[in-house]
Amino acid sequence: MISEKMLALARGNSAIRAMFEEGNRLAALHGRENVYDFSLGNPNFPAPAAVGRAIRGVLDREDSLLVHGYMNNAGYADVRGAVADSLNARFGTAFDADNIIMSVGAAGGLNVVLKTLLNPGDEVIAFAPYFVEYGNYVANYDGKLVVVPPNTEDFMPDPQRLETALSPRTKAVILNSPNNPTGVVYTAETIARIAEVLEAGRRAYGTEIFILSDEPYRELAYDGVEVPYVTKFYNNTIICYSWSKSLSLPGERIGYIVIPRAVHEYEIVYEAACIATRVLGFVNAPSLMQRVAAECLGARTDVEAYDRNRRLLYEGLRALGFSCVFPQGAFYLWMKSPVPDVDFAEAAKRYNILVVPGASFGCPGYVRLAYCVSEDTIRRSLPAFEKLAAACFARA
Amino acid sequence: MISEKMLALARGNSAIRAMFEEGNRLAALHGRENVYDFSLGNPNFPAPAAVGRAIRGVLDREDSLLVHGYMNNAGYADVRGAVADSLNARFGTAFDADNIIMSVGAAGGLNVVLKTLLNPGDEVIAFAPYFVEYGNYVANYDGKLVVVPPNTEDFMPDPQRLETALSPRTKAVILNSPNNPTGVVYTAETIARIAEVLEAGRRAYGTEIFILSDEPYRELAYDGVEVPYVTKFYNNTIICYSWSKSLSLPGERIGYIVIPRAVHEYEIVYEAACIATRVLGFVNAPSLMQRVAAECLGARTDVEAYDRNRRLLYEGLRALGFSCVFPQGAFYLWMKSPVPDVDFAEAAKRYNILVVPGASFGCPGYVRLAYCVSEDTIRRSLPAFEKLAAACFARA
Repeated sequence: MISEKMLALARGNSAIRAMFEEGNRLAALHGRENVYDFSLGNPNFPAPAAVGRAIRGVLDREDSLLVHGYMNNAGYADVRGAVADSLNARFGTAFDADNIIMSVGAAGGLNVVLKTLLNPGDEVIAFAPYFVEYGNYVANYDGKLVVVPPNTEDFMPDPQRLETALSPRTKAVILNSPNNPTGVVYTAETIARIAEVLEAGRRAYGTEIFILSDEPYRELAYDGVEVPYVTKFYNNTIICYSWSKSLSLPGERIGYIVIPRAVHEYEIVYEAACIATRVLGFVNAPSLMQRVAAECLGARTDVEAYDRNRRLLYEGLRALGFSCVFPQGAFYLWMKSPVPDVDFAEAAKRYNILVVPGASFGCPGYVRLAYCVSEDTIRRSLPAFEKLAAACFARA
Repeated sequence: MISEKMLALARGNSAIRAMFEEGNRLAALHGRENVYDFSLGNPNFPAPAAVGRAIRGVLDREDSLLVHGYMNNAGYADVRGAVADSLNARFGTAFDADNIIMSVGAAGGLNVVLKTLLNPGDEVIAFAPYFVEYGNYVANYDGKLVVVPPNTEDFMPDPQRLETALSPRTKAVILNSPNNPTGVVYTAETIARIAEVLEAGRRAYGTEIFILSDEPYRELAYDGVEVPYVTKFYNNTIICYSWSKSLSLPGERIGYIVIPRAVHEYEIVYEAACIATRVLGFVNAPSLMQRVAAECLGARTDVEAYDRNRRLLYEGLRALGFSCVFPQGAFYLWMKSPVPDVDFAEAAKRYNILVVPGASFGCPGYVRLAYCVSEDTIRRSLPAFEKLAAACFARA
């Protein structure tokens, strides 16, 4: 009766819902504070004070018809200009307002770009492990997600395996650094090699291949590691950014798309992306939050606190014998599962620990722990992990 | 290279852009205040003071992690509950939080519902004249828009012509009252007759047919006219509402979907619509604005001022010999064009008047004038219309 595609998704959704309900059941039984929920990528630090000040300031100073009204589908020109200036200052790029489209978060941005680019049957490549929604986004436009198997050595995307995955139907490759779920930050060398492979692919097939760089975690990088700006490595690069994590505003749905002039047929791609913003029903990114974001381009969430969480959880789990990727960015810890990952996630629940099995990211054998929780939760979870370790390593 | 669908849309977009640029050209030549721009459905009255108060109040009282954070894809349960209560109080319905999904405006809501319902080739019926984006929204999900020819007598949708348009592939019928572009408010009798036709169609074909009621103009009704609540007439009714016009918040992208329990397989439709909200990249309606909307359920824009505009423009144009539908709702005047509508819109520009040809709504021979402008603009436009009338009636 309803859409077959949606019916399949609704059926597949029961696992996610079951996990959510399990969390609630455990919280009801043992108290919310005694459930160690590492399953959700929801920032636990409030938005910086600059956000509240900016909201009040915009309301005080600016005309209601401007603040809450329609503007171009691309967003306010002055906001887009401010975003471009900020990127130029930080990354030495040369963008202007007409390289930026304000978007309903990175998820909205990715949908706009995929709608703009894909014809039915076009292939989009992602490196496992990958954010599971990529598959749904690509399917929305009748594209096909092609998954490059994981490089379990260091979880850096492997340019050689990318070469094997390329085909005449390859329209785009999704990069995601800092990475969800591994916390890996792609090196400049890796990005440069990926660019070479794609240039060779373009020449070989006589097609255009785009990089879609999904960057909601750009500002969450630790130990001074550089997160290279991908447009500098490959002309056909489109960036999808979000302030969801960097300003702890995930509910507000505010981000932007960068379409550089170096992109093949830039004018038509940019215009089509503006129209896609309209026809998909976004119409424009939320207006007040556009103006607020422009005033908070220098504000940051509490990266140091995430860093403390990162070290505490990583070191705590290592000491218990678990093997983890040391994350350089985002707020996820990627851990080797001593038993099959789905079994591990099940076993963890018995100790009130919630984690996401790697199978949900196209990479069984691992689990993801989101450490955007309180330091106290991590600290108190470690004895529970100790019991879990004893149970698992005994079995393994 | 890019999506063929989007390439076609980008090419078709040049007419709209040309109109917009013509407006700017005229404004540069003659001054913005001397251009009588009736082309845009952008509210000209600021948001009620209650909106600013609610934003500040929510920021003062509520936790930042709640206000700006993720929640269920359907939206905050308390906000959905408040919306349901408000509808029940006004319309005698019996909704609760689980009948409501908060949406990114009505445009976002319509996309979510069409994504939920449509299989490729499914037909969606609209009555001409209709909001041109319906065609794009339906095409997003590979559906086919079937247009019922206009009833030029009174522009009330004609149930008999609807009967002719039904087929075994009919999945939905879009209603839009108060109507864009005609200003007509559908009568209870008309809606009841449409419901009968659809019930007969369901029985005849053994299919489910839905009404999608697109209601961004619900609160803009004049002369005490009733805008019937469509769920009371037909079980398979889904409502898409927006606060864009009722609270002058078009840029904020905030509205809701109503899925009554009487809808066939309600549970699966509701769950699929929540998932569609996620996979289309909306994820959730903007969070702060959800909380604000819940506090402003009793607030209204300045309907009396729109009413004054309505009378002034209608009477002014009638006195000049133009023939118009007397609008009962929305903020549009639908006028018979004394010459072909595209020529009329062209001729109007010579007098610094911007209107939209009826061809853009699937109904040539008419033009739409949006009277969400200042009273002063209307007053000063009338001498320009007088010259335009003289030129057109002389030719006609």
